[in-house]
Amino acid sequence: MSVERRSRLTPDARRAQLISAGVSFLADHTLDDLTIDVLAARGGVSRALIFHYFDSRQGMQRAVVQAARDALLHATLPRPELAPEQRVHDVLVRITSFVADHRGTFFSLVRGPASGDPTVRALVDEARAANAERLREALIELGEPDSSALRLALRSWVAFAEETFVALASEQADATAAQADHLPEDLIGFLELTLTGVVAAARKARI
Amino acid sequence: MSVERRSRLTPDARRAQLISAGVSFLADHTLDDLTIDVLAARGGVSRALIFHYFDSRQGMQRAVVQAARDALLHATLPRPELAPEQRVHDVLVRITSFVADHRGTFFSLVRGPASGDPTVRALVDEARAANAERLREALIELGEPDSSALRLALRSWVAFAEETFVALASEQADATAAQADHLPEDLIGFLELTLTGVVAAARKARI
Repeated sequence: MSVERRSRLTPDARRAQLISAGVSFLADHTLDDLTIDVLAARGGVSRALIFHYFDSRQGMQRAVVQAARDALLHATLPRPELAPEQRVHDVLVRITSFVADHRGTFFSLVRGPASGDPTVRALVDEARAANAERLREALIELGEPDSSALRLALRSWVAFAEETFVALASEQADATAAQADHLPEDLIGFLELTLTGVVAAARKARI
Repeated sequence: MSVERRSRLTPDARRAQLISAGVSFLADHTLDDLTIDVLAARGGVSRALIFHYFDSRQGMQRAVVQAARDALLHATLPRPELAPEQRVHDVLVRITSFVADHRGTFFSLVRGPASGDPTVRALVDEARAANAERLREALIELGEPDSSALRLALRSWVAFAEETFVALASEQADATAAQADHLPEDLIGFLELTLTGVVAAARKARI
């Protein structure tokens, strides 16, 4: 890419382009591998420009994780026009499809940044909390009584679902060609049944 | 501690003592904070001796995480003399008590080392797999049919339980003095009910 062509981008557009290159990088690398040098090479810009936009490696990683998290939350935004039951089903369909299409990004989010930078951890925890809250809203519309047990069950169930995606992916990575992938509808059914199971359990719990 | 006194320990005992100092350190620090300098200071030995025993910071961290994981698995080893239902209940009682007594160590295990070193990640994943397998053995004794859905549900439920412990701890950290801690028996009841819920869900799932 020539200097002339690059110089046409506004600073905001350049920054967005670099963040997007960082998110793509996460598709097949961990966050730890995302260095200033890597992003400079991927974005076709100098290290100095990366520092100009993000101040530090940490600032750059935070911006990339935030963008990846926002992409996940955007892709799985509940459709308010659907009835609550269909809305939950639709979100599970779409998150399953997001994970299938952006497996590396999803794994970087749910497993990659757990250690190290507390800001990155907080960004990812916010996504888990947001997903639990969306489920709670739909369930309350369905007549589920609100309770601290329900909130705890939904938050922990989001971790359950994340582990399910991670476990199936590592199983597939180990599998021989003879073993087929799980059907998305079976996975969605499993998630729906376990969600219903923990919600019913929370109703009986005193916590 | 004098050189004379230190020299009385055999190399194996000295190594074990250093690992134990590292595990104690995790009680109120993350794995990232565990450096060669920290362990040398805690163990009252030179940096050179730490390198002698563990080769590298990574080697030292791996040894400490392995010891912390083994402590957790040992503390929650099922008691074979109990009937399967009591055995599951007893393990939930003991893991709840382990987390209350060793909160920092537990958090370092379940959340700290998720990024970075794949060997550390594998150590922690093994603990999750071991806990899921123990549950599976007890459930099969109780007549639960074995299936891939059951295995997946149990593995994911261990992540559910970990998230429950982490969520309650951060809730307590944020709570005012007026809010009491959750009663351990309520927490154990919540875990038992949700475990039963996901096992029943797995029975209906096709995955």
